[in-house]
Amino acid sequence: MTTEDFRPEKEATTFYPPQRILMGPGPSDTHPRVLAAMARPTLGHLDPVFSEMMDEMKGLLRYSFQTKNMMTFSVSGPGSVGMEMCFVNMIVPGDKVVVCRNGVFGGRMIENVERHGGTAVVVDDDWGKPVDPQKVEDALKQNPDAKILAFVHAETSTGALSDAKTLCEIARRYDCMTIADTVTSLAGSPIYVDEWGIDAIYSGSQKCLSCPPGLSPVSFSERVTDLVKNRQDKVHSWFMDLNQLLGYWGSSTRTYHHTAPTNALYALHESLLMLSEEGLEHSWARHERNHQALKAGFATMGINYLVEEQYRLPQLNSVFIPEGVDEKEVRRRLLDDYSLEIGAGLGAFAGKVWRFGLMGTSSKVENVLFCLNALETVLSDMGMNLERGAAASAAHRYYADNPMS
Amino acid sequence: MTTEDFRPEKEATTFYPPQRILMGPGPSDTHPRVLAAMARPTLGHLDPVFSEMMDEMKGLLRYSFQTKNMMTFSVSGPGSVGMEMCFVNMIVPGDKVVVCRNGVFGGRMIENVERHGGTAVVVDDDWGKPVDPQKVEDALKQNPDAKILAFVHAETSTGALSDAKTLCEIARRYDCMTIADTVTSLAGSPIYVDEWGIDAIYSGSQKCLSCPPGLSPVSFSERVTDLVKNRQDKVHSWFMDLNQLLGYWGSSTRTYHHTAPTNALYALHESLLMLSEEGLEHSWARHERNHQALKAGFATMGINYLVEEQYRLPQLNSVFIPEGVDEKEVRRRLLDDYSLEIGAGLGAFAGKVWRFGLMGTSSKVENVLFCLNALETVLSDMGMNLERGAAASAAHRYYADNPMS
Repeated sequence: MTTEDFRPEKEATTFYPPQRILMGPGPSDTHPRVLAAMARPTLGHLDPVFSEMMDEMKGLLRYSFQTKNMMTFSVSGPGSVGMEMCFVNMIVPGDKVVVCRNGVFGGRMIENVERHGGTAVVVDDDWGKPVDPQKVEDALKQNPDAKILAFVHAETSTGALSDAKTLCEIARRYDCMTIADTVTSLAGSPIYVDEWGIDAIYSGSQKCLSCPPGLSPVSFSERVTDLVKNRQDKVHSWFMDLNQLLGYWGSSTRTYHHTAPTNALYALHESLLMLSEEGLEHSWARHERNHQALKAGFATMGINYLVEEQYRLPQLNSVFIPEGVDEKEVRRRLLDDYSLEIGAGLGAFAGKVWRFGLMGTSSKVENVLFCLNALETVLSDMGMNLERGAAASAAHRYYADNPMS
Repeated sequence: MTTEDFRPEKEATTFYPPQRILMGPGPSDTHPRVLAAMARPTLGHLDPVFSEMMDEMKGLLRYSFQTKNMMTFSVSGPGSVGMEMCFVNMIVPGDKVVVCRNGVFGGRMIENVERHGGTAVVVDDDWGKPVDPQKVEDALKQNPDAKILAFVHAETSTGALSDAKTLCEIARRYDCMTIADTVTSLAGSPIYVDEWGIDAIYSGSQKCLSCPPGLSPVSFSERVTDLVKNRQDKVHSWFMDLNQLLGYWGSSTRTYHHTAPTNALYALHESLLMLSEEGLEHSWARHERNHQALKAGFATMGINYLVEEQYRLPQLNSVFIPEGVDEKEVRRRLLDDYSLEIGAGLGAFAGKVWRFGLMGTSSKVENVLFCLNALETVLSDMGMNLERGAAASAAHRYYADNPMS
């Protein structure tokens, strides 16, 4: 045998991805400024210039999370690692955790609790509904030994927004710490970490921040860092141990922990900078406005939402697939003919709903109009009786009547 | 309070990193082709076009590792996550693992064993020495219940190369599985996963592959995937559970697990493609040749190696700092005056050695000559009595006498 025997059968070539319009549940389109940032020269992860950038990024992250938490940084892995970092650090085996499940990601939280030696008390709500605060209160009343309340602020699998503020208030009354999944909400919906008193929060780079996937912004209150510092046992992960990361992200002198993903962090820095330039309120309002316009267009096609109006995430629009439509074929045509990606339903909603993301850079007027036109055309071609141009026209009308302030 | 109260005190601006020459222990310089790949448009992680790229990349990774292992892929996190993925999947609490420690990363392996419920039997060798196969054999003889042998092929903290082939032979005789850290060796030094019978191997993107940091190529033998499939308990991590990743990386139909870091994977794909174009043997020979030229230059300055000649990693040159030299000042001047990064010593060697990396793209004639000239100038300016130009001249002579075949 020679090394040649291990070559792939088909010769590889440079990969040129097509230019998509990403209107699924994430990733969203990466802004050209962010792509350009990512392509800048690699620095050593202990370079003083890089450290300055990291410090600046921490400041930008604190703004985006609305917190003064010292331990606010970016985990060198996707949102799932940010999630696991919260659970593995905060759960000491034997701990009881109340977990709210109203979609895929609540289920993943339960997995995290159990794999790290905790016991999950599950508060179930139907997929598509928000977490019911009363049920949470009941669960905490019945489990006075519960240490943590974990919930998903914005369920990516359904597009439902839960009332994080109220859930945190309840948790505080029962002396519970909170873990909040804000992968899909950060920058798209209001989040006030300090005001609401969220103890541990994680998000993802690839949703409303419009950065490529791969990083997970997190923030931890002092209650959490104290807990982790005072643990008697070692955290059951080397990579995710917050005690070790304190030396790298927490202080001004950097202690080597792992090699930070320099170029990915340039990208996140630039996207957070863009968010700061736009301003949080403007970003939230932009996501809301584009959602309303899309909704106006859907209405002309008789397409209905999965989630009740008051709990809808503007950045993730789950809608019922019109009856008799071959939904896979619709998605295939949108992708092949329009290079437009939308999301399929998950779990019980597979084949029943589509998920239209309007996140970050992807949340813009052009995309709403393009998407409505494309969908209308595809559905018409596949036999639905639709008035051509009505959907985009309704969206246009909404935009005209509701200018950005 | 308003959202404005959380803005960073100092206004952030777009980050423009300086163009460094990275000759430390990693990251190495990213090739322009790889940077360009990273900046291409983001795709959905379930896009069929992206899946094709992933399949192609798996083939390229198999070539670079010299394996036919089905489970050969890239972990969505830095090398430390690749390391932890091996340990958390293969260790069932109570397992005994023989860990060889001859530098920082052997120590990190012990942490991994213990945090995941295993017992580490430590085989110590002096930092700067390779792992002693005889000691390993003795440890396995004394611990017939040991399940795994874990060792670092290329110790980044010292620049010592261990004999992976022999260590794997010994492990096999004692019916042990093997975990090998090849973060610094992959593409720089010969690795033959199948021929040597390595069961679990991990590497990093940012060393001899010349890709930005953030990804960890891994490969697992069927023995490992069988072990993980047949575990009675759930793997003590959700993100790193190999059983779940089998559905995403192992099969032709992709089951959603986590959102893959699309753009980082474009970069890794391109760097693996470049390695395949160059050919493994050529890459190994190039690393060796540049190492020899650097060594010839060091010799003119009386600079000596930490590691004995036969165990030296060509891509990581740890050398003793000349006596009486303010080593921090040397590194500062190289960085500030020449934009050249070299590495400091770690642990017991802090302040005693420098680490010069010649990895991937950074391993080239220009860098060797530039580095020797810069170092000679800085050391002369700081009072050492050196013949100007002698170092680069010696390297030139080596190159002239030893052309690439």
